[in-house]
Amino acid sequence: MSDKIRWGLIGLGFIARRFVNDLARLPDAEIYAVASRSQEKADAFGAEYGATKIYGSYEDLANDPNVDVAYIGTPHNLHLEHSLLCLNAGKHVLCEKPFAVNAKEAQVMIDCAREKNRFLMDAFWTRYFPAMDKLRELLAEDVIGDVMLVQADFGGRGPVVPEKRHFNPDLAGGALLDVGSYCIQFASMIYGKPPTDIVSQYTLGSTGVDELSVLVFRYSDYEMATLTSAIRLGTPHEARVMGTEGYIAIPNFWHPNELTSVLSGQAPETLRFPYEGEGFQFEAIEVGNCIRGGLIESPVYPLEETLTIMQTMDRIRADWGLRYPFED
Amino acid sequence: MSDKIRWGLIGLGFIARRFVNDLARLPDAEIYAVASRSQEKADAFGAEYGATKIYGSYEDLANDPNVDVAYIGTPHNLHLEHSLLCLNAGKHVLCEKPFAVNAKEAQVMIDCAREKNRFLMDAFWTRYFPAMDKLRELLAEDVIGDVMLVQADFGGRGPVVPEKRHFNPDLAGGALLDVGSYCIQFASMIYGKPPTDIVSQYTLGSTGVDELSVLVFRYSDYEMATLTSAIRLGTPHEARVMGTEGYIAIPNFWHPNELTSVLSGQAPETLRFPYEGEGFQFEAIEVGNCIRGGLIESPVYPLEETLTIMQTMDRIRADWGLRYPFED
Repeated sequence: MSDKIRWGLIGLGFIARRFVNDLARLPDAEIYAVASRSQEKADAFGAEYGATKIYGSYEDLANDPNVDVAYIGTPHNLHLEHSLLCLNAGKHVLCEKPFAVNAKEAQVMIDCAREKNRFLMDAFWTRYFPAMDKLRELLAEDVIGDVMLVQADFGGRGPVVPEKRHFNPDLAGGALLDVGSYCIQFASMIYGKPPTDIVSQYTLGSTGVDELSVLVFRYSDYEMATLTSAIRLGTPHEARVMGTEGYIAIPNFWHPNELTSVLSGQAPETLRFPYEGEGFQFEAIEVGNCIRGGLIESPVYPLEETLTIMQTMDRIRADWGLRYPFED
Repeated sequence: MSDKIRWGLIGLGFIARRFVNDLARLPDAEIYAVASRSQEKADAFGAEYGATKIYGSYEDLANDPNVDVAYIGTPHNLHLEHSLLCLNAGKHVLCEKPFAVNAKEAQVMIDCAREKNRFLMDAFWTRYFPAMDKLRELLAEDVIGDVMLVQADFGGRGPVVPEKRHFNPDLAGGALLDVGSYCIQFASMIYGKPPTDIVSQYTLGSTGVDELSVLVFRYSDYEMATLTSAIRLGTPHEARVMGTEGYIAIPNFWHPNELTSVLSGQAPETLRFPYEGEGFQFEAIEVGNCIRGGLIESPVYPLEETLTIMQTMDRIRADWGLRYPFED
């Protein structure tokens, strides 16, 4: 490995652009290679970000011996294929969220990384923010006592466009995988285990995918979570963790830059964690730290947890009777 | 009726004291009579508030021809008995929340009021605040478009004391009736109809009553509510109404004094509604307006809605297998 970690980008869409804008902030990261199935798109993107190598095929990037880690930014129905491509070529991999379409795919990806002894991480970017580090620290210190309830909502509103990713079952559309996953991974981070029981209200829209749902998870008698997802409704995007001694609110928990603690008998206190850009750099920093440390998975988001979350989403979709056409 | 509405208070506990502190702010209301089963308690309370008549029995207050309206502030397992006592004696009645223990009781109370042609109202005080008037006005103006989700939480944390009201099944204890009712009546106000489908996670504690629950109501495919209640967990007490064009948040919705509107493409706006005291005066003002206007129920909170909410709570308790001993 050179002094800088050399990144290779697979897929150059909207999310890759946001990621790379923040990756560019890191002095020890190099935007080394970019790949798109469209040479034209790759050329434009590569020129814009000063990439050393510009590929019109994902395979070529995977086979470039100078790429240290591949960022998989293709649509999530392609994460399995592109992660395997890069892992099998000996690359470390940071795979965009949702990590895969179902637990079966996630398991194959994880098995491959372990077999190849390569680093693999779920790019659930919100987990790696300094505000989230602080939240985990506060919870470990039992600041709010025993957690009894997690509340989180993530909903956006867009027009129903059947062929587009959010609404298209062929692309594993729906609110659950795209935005509900933020809420589920948050609850998973807090409780550190999967729910034992799940109930929900949900609506499958005209294209067959979930457009609005409220999930209620139960972990034990006094541990619950209420999680809202939508692609037809904008919601505040707030998360709250409520315990026996108070609660912590994280406004805008998908760009977390503050925590407000409301503890029994004390004035509310807000801790701020300002950062530059959108905050995608934090997951890239975690990747760098792990790779330099010789780890093949992140202790902040172990692959077993990623797998468990995919299993939870499988279970919810099974309850809903929502299978994607390619799963049959 | 004299120039002032002469109030008679049945039950002189914690809630009656809070109510009467605010009632005393109204120039056209007179704290005319008070009654407790303890003459001593009645004497002390009556002297403190300058009541003209002080009774050691509820019957005597009910039979005082000068009482215009009785406020029923006894524990909710006694609301039926004391409301009927006063209605049958020809008094108008404002009955504390929860209005009754179940829909059967509520129906008897409503039937009695109609038969006697007396005013009867559910003292769900939060409904009558100026902030709630404004919220109803904004929703009627479709400011946030079509409502898709209501979120509300009401939880307090107290020690488990089996004989005390909150935990005692003989006194119709549990979170649902005591605090969950705030959330349910709020959702009912927004949607103006009962849910068609309900799912929940809930925990019945050591005394047999519900200590923590999350309810998810469905009204139609794109109309839901997620409602949290607890007597073992303090929660923020916030309500939010989310629609297709934005949402309105009501922090501390059981003492509502502000509304924050977050509308698509606009800066958030907070409207403030300061008031004196705790805000119990607003329900008393509504009672005064209705009685002076010759109404026997409030258009702000019709008895049919009170009944529907009790039916909803019956249905939830039936799902949970939670019956109070005196219901058998």
